[in-house]
Amino acid sequence: MRILVQKFGGTSVATPEVREQAIEHIMDALRNGYAVVVVVSAMGRKGSPYATDTLLQLVDHGECEARELDLLMSCGEIISAVVLSSALRERGLDTCVLTGGQAGIVTNDEFTNASILTIHPKRIRSELERGKIVIVTGFQGITAEGEITTLGRGGSDTTATALGVALDAEIVDIFTDVEGIMTADPRIVGDAKRLHQVTYTEICNLAYQGAKVIHPRAVEIAMQKNIPIRVRSTLSKDEGTLVTCQAELDRLEARGLADRLITGVTQTVNITQIKVAVSPSKGNQLQIFKAMADHGISVDFISVTPTGVAFTVTNQEISKAIQVLRELGYEPETLANCAKVSVVGAGIAGVPGVMAKIVEALTDEGIEILQSADSHTTIWCLVHEEDMTRAVRALHAKFNLNK
Amino acid sequence: MRILVQKFGGTSVATPEVREQAIEHIMDALRNGYAVVVVVSAMGRKGSPYATDTLLQLVDHGECEARELDLLMSCGEIISAVVLSSALRERGLDTCVLTGGQAGIVTNDEFTNASILTIHPKRIRSELERGKIVIVTGFQGITAEGEITTLGRGGSDTTATALGVALDAEIVDIFTDVEGIMTADPRIVGDAKRLHQVTYTEICNLAYQGAKVIHPRAVEIAMQKNIPIRVRSTLSKDEGTLVTCQAELDRLEARGLADRLITGVTQTVNITQIKVAVSPSKGNQLQIFKAMADHGISVDFISVTPTGVAFTVTNQEISKAIQVLRELGYEPETLANCAKVSVVGAGIAGVPGVMAKIVEALTDEGIEILQSADSHTTIWCLVHEEDMTRAVRALHAKFNLNK
Repeated sequence: MRILVQKFGGTSVATPEVREQAIEHIMDALRNGYAVVVVVSAMGRKGSPYATDTLLQLVDHGECEARELDLLMSCGEIISAVVLSSALRERGLDTCVLTGGQAGIVTNDEFTNASILTIHPKRIRSELERGKIVIVTGFQGITAEGEITTLGRGGSDTTATALGVALDAEIVDIFTDVEGIMTADPRIVGDAKRLHQVTYTEICNLAYQGAKVIHPRAVEIAMQKNIPIRVRSTLSKDEGTLVTCQAELDRLEARGLADRLITGVTQTVNITQIKVAVSPSKGNQLQIFKAMADHGISVDFISVTPTGVAFTVTNQEISKAIQVLRELGYEPETLANCAKVSVVGAGIAGVPGVMAKIVEALTDEGIEILQSADSHTTIWCLVHEEDMTRAVRALHAKFNLNK
Repeated sequence: MRILVQKFGGTSVATPEVREQAIEHIMDALRNGYAVVVVVSAMGRKGSPYATDTLLQLVDHGECEARELDLLMSCGEIISAVVLSSALRERGLDTCVLTGGQAGIVTNDEFTNASILTIHPKRIRSELERGKIVIVTGFQGITAEGEITTLGRGGSDTTATALGVALDAEIVDIFTDVEGIMTADPRIVGDAKRLHQVTYTEICNLAYQGAKVIHPRAVEIAMQKNIPIRVRSTLSKDEGTLVTCQAELDRLEARGLADRLITGVTQTVNITQIKVAVSPSKGNQLQIFKAMADHGISVDFISVTPTGVAFTVTNQEISKAIQVLRELGYEPETLANCAKVSVVGAGIAGVPGVMAKIVEALTDEGIEILQSADSHTTIWCLVHEEDMTRAVRALHAKFNLNK
């Protein structure tokens, strides 16, 4: 049995029209001889009564245990799955809807952010063997004690790849509202190109740096058993982007290491930079970061110098961060409305001249680099938010990503 | 532990305002020292996105297996339960929401109309012992194989009384949008009285004859273990109507058999009478009723005479019924827009003069009795729908039910 897992996100099942497109993809898979497991998210985004966010708004004014939030949210995918199933049956196809629990997805009891412990795919296999299209509610599982859990944001991607691994699927298709993995956000860079193949590592790095196409957790699961992922648009027949391990080998062997140094350029907004003048004692600096952690404030872009520390928080958390710092006796200097621009490439480490090219591209445009940092796969620059669009375009062009 | 089960119907949890009233009743029960199990229906009626009927409309245009309809419908009560729980927590109360399955309600696999096989109340008991208000989603259970089922219409009443039995509750409160069990529909009979006490048998007979306050199946379950039910209004502090077995004993012993001969007067509309001239051969008559059954047409008010048969169907089914009869070679005579008026009383059998009083009341009003029938607890008369209101009022007055 050749198994294909197809995951449809919220926008891919939101209206009867787009559901028809999703159904076409399912029927294509059947025509190609696959046994099909469909994973669905809740219908639509904000505004739909059955979207996750809308369901959560029902308890906005009250108190709610995480356990009960999960019960509430789980309804979104159940409704979506039954509606899709009904549309497939109308076409004469035979279906079986399974909740996360019924599909054998066992999680720990960290409600609203549970992790999959194991999957018992027996029920799915037997329904597939009976010729059914199995529709699994994404984003949810069940604990050994029978509690309903959700996997946190992006969780339907995780459901799809985890099922792909458990069922030894040939491919996992992630259907979304974009054409695939792009070299940059096409709303910013008009000539951004779709990547035909990327490695698990490349897509994870892009996702961690703000490309919202697929959840990195889902990619890491597929990577463990080397299950290929295709990131595709529901609205087109295009193949999208293939995510494999093989792609990396192909690249290194057949085309040489330098063929694709840079995978893409990404950006995140809504960042405030904080600078604190502090004497170069390890204890002082530690105290600042410990206080941030104790107050649940997530910090990024940490830079420690002899005269002080700099780091970033989200614009939303700035007043809380300032209050914490003042209680410690510091008067921080802040710069709101910054953006982080990232150049991502698996082979970036140790390649000379990459940082030089980035600095050249940005200074040629008159863009001030407020701060920079790098890892073996990514170089980040903090810029003023008003410079972000020009920065992304300049970097995209500098590395010839439109070619 | 003194346990009270409180069931709130869809209209009792539909809006924040009415939910506040429901919460008051729950807090009253806590103040009276009860451990409280709340059973909820889906929120609201038609128009609410989370009402059962609205959820079903989502698959109106497609095909749906009964199993998946149950998955879909189960979301209505889950959403309702979490929303109520959240409102209770806002008041500082500690709650625990349980789905039918988590509450230990095991059913057979007759999807959309499942029957409760057994209840394992261990989880409910342990949550109550921890001081929690346990909120159970009404109308649903789980099969031994883990399939989610619903109990059919009126199923939340059944959940409430079945939990009452399983937990050996002191009382089961059924909160609704009327004051209690009335001697007649107050929209028809202005001076209809609330009954303070009725027996299980009386309330079942009223319910079977069109009084929609509580589902007879739910009453029968409570009756098995003699768990008292109170039918009460969410919007008032009034005690409502107490349904017990004891009431019957009280009535018979303390007040004499004749104290309440008649419980109430009910009515159902939307009936068509059919008469077929047929020779008095058993085979012919059997053929007619068998054909109706084979075509899924439910018949009532059957009367067989030497010259033919008469029976009633709903107005909706009349054209189908005529077609079936014509295929058998009969030309039926039909009378649409009839109503059935019922006089219900547990002690009606063998009491002389009841039928005479009914005939007197109706003929005094110039109301034509099209057909009549009786059982040991009920006497029915078929009248023209336009006479129905006057008929109900006349019977209510004749038996002094307003006293």
